[in-house]
Amino acid sequence: MTKVLSGYLIEKKQWVDEKLPSYIGKIEAPEIVKESMIYSLKAGGKRIRPILLFATMSAFGKDEENGLDVACALEMIHTYSLIHDDLPSMDDDDLRRGKLTNHKVYGEAIAILAGDGLLTHSFEVIANSKQLTEELKVKVISMIAHAAGPAGMVGGQVADLLGENKNLTVHELEYIHEHKTGKLLRFAVVAGAVIAGASREQQESLDQFAKHLGLAFQIKDDILDIEGNEEQIGKPVGSDVGKDKSTYPKLLSLEGAKEKCKDHLKKAKEYLIKANIKSDLLLEIADYIVNRDH
Amino acid sequence: MTKVLSGYLIEKKQWVDEKLPSYIGKIEAPEIVKESMIYSLKAGGKRIRPILLFATMSAFGKDEENGLDVACALEMIHTYSLIHDDLPSMDDDDLRRGKLTNHKVYGEAIAILAGDGLLTHSFEVIANSKQLTEELKVKVISMIAHAAGPAGMVGGQVADLLGENKNLTVHELEYIHEHKTGKLLRFAVVAGAVIAGASREQQESLDQFAKHLGLAFQIKDDILDIEGNEEQIGKPVGSDVGKDKSTYPKLLSLEGAKEKCKDHLKKAKEYLIKANIKSDLLLEIADYIVNRDH
Repeated sequence: MTKVLSGYLIEKKQWVDEKLPSYIGKIEAPEIVKESMIYSLKAGGKRIRPILLFATMSAFGKDEENGLDVACALEMIHTYSLIHDDLPSMDDDDLRRGKLTNHKVYGEAIAILAGDGLLTHSFEVIANSKQLTEELKVKVISMIAHAAGPAGMVGGQVADLLGENKNLTVHELEYIHEHKTGKLLRFAVVAGAVIAGASREQQESLDQFAKHLGLAFQIKDDILDIEGNEEQIGKPVGSDVGKDKSTYPKLLSLEGAKEKCKDHLKKAKEYLIKANIKSDLLLEIADYIVNRDH
Repeated sequence: MTKVLSGYLIEKKQWVDEKLPSYIGKIEAPEIVKESMIYSLKAGGKRIRPILLFATMSAFGKDEENGLDVACALEMIHTYSLIHDDLPSMDDDDLRRGKLTNHKVYGEAIAILAGDGLLTHSFEVIANSKQLTEELKVKVISMIAHAAGPAGMVGGQVADLLGENKNLTVHELEYIHEHKTGKLLRFAVVAGAVIAGASREQQESLDQFAKHLGLAFQIKDDILDIEGNEEQIGKPVGSDVGKDKSTYPKLLSLEGAKEKCKDHLKKAKEYLIKANIKSDLLLEIADYIVNRDH
């Protein structure tokens, strides 16, 4: 990673980390639900969605300041989805990034309501933003609701639940990833473009860039699961490919998955070049996401 | 109830009943989550929120057609809140209006996601509406997110959970009702006014009208619980005031609760008159809501 990129990632992550709790702190609501929302907002993460939004604006030569409210709203929606995904009736996870999940700290009822609260408040943040015109707000709200709703992230989570303990096809696995995580990543990039005043063609190229980047990211995740295991616990490659979970290496072999990952990264870069913007930073981010070793 | 009012209630309820599933039917999403959302949307109810929105527009001499998308989005949010409230970790209800609750039919995970989906989609419906200007959409989205979010309905549900098995003060009980149900009722009326082009003063008068109407409605609910029981199972007044649930008659006596209900209805009507609009229908609805016997 270049110094420019690492500086950018650190700076923008700090910006979002500092800003996020302030949206919740000023709400007039029972303290416990505010605490629960802030707990998960502060639980970390790389803030990759806000960073993609900012980097896209920057590629158009625009000040990222005007994307801050939308970037934080997006991170609120991402955070709500993690809280609900971790619930006992969903993935039933006790830990996320080494910290207790929301419902382990606040109980299921408050966790559900904290998720509902974050989702609902994200729309108020965009609607009340002083950084966008009314036309832009409506467009961004329509886009983010579509990306996060039944046709997007919610639909992906449903498909993921339905696919548990089943042998999925590559096509079905792609549907899950494209919806469960892909749609919000695409929103991040396209929203950055829309706020920056991109043309229709540029928006479409960047949407395809983000689509392929998202798929490369997911395949890399699957590959790291295996190769990380191999180093850490010395098991042969492939032996820990979740017995009841479909992954790219399981469906395509490890080599095939690596090939597919490379293909998607290549396609992503082609679309990025087509957008005809100052793309250095986005190219670096794409390489970083796909070549990371953890 | 006059023939005019009963005709209006039936007509507008049918309008919403017919329109609601069509918003969901056309979404590209896994069938099961669409089915789950539609199941709860079709589970009935008086559609009192949409009707209040329409009746307010009508009081300004406006065509209710332009409020249809917002009214249906509002009903989606109300429906999502019922699905989540009924969950095992919340009120744990198996039946609602005589039908199995969503999670009893589709399981907890799909029920949570159907709720998330309805909430998210409601914002897309407003943002994509062809019935409103961009300025109106932003205003309505900001208002509905505030009414439904942590400072509104979600906060009220949190307070309700925290208040279980506690002796609440009248003030605390009012906080719960004003937020859990009151905020969306007020949104219904004020949104109708805003869409109809009401002045700031008219919006404020109608907001107060709806606030007092909502409180009268809740107190009446508590009174019917007791008086219904008395007739049906012959127990003395007050003996079945839920031992672990605070109600107005429990805190104020039955007579005191009836007095307070009347006071709120009176105040509601005073504010309605202040708004200086063609208020016959809203007056009739207010009387109907408070004088109903079931």
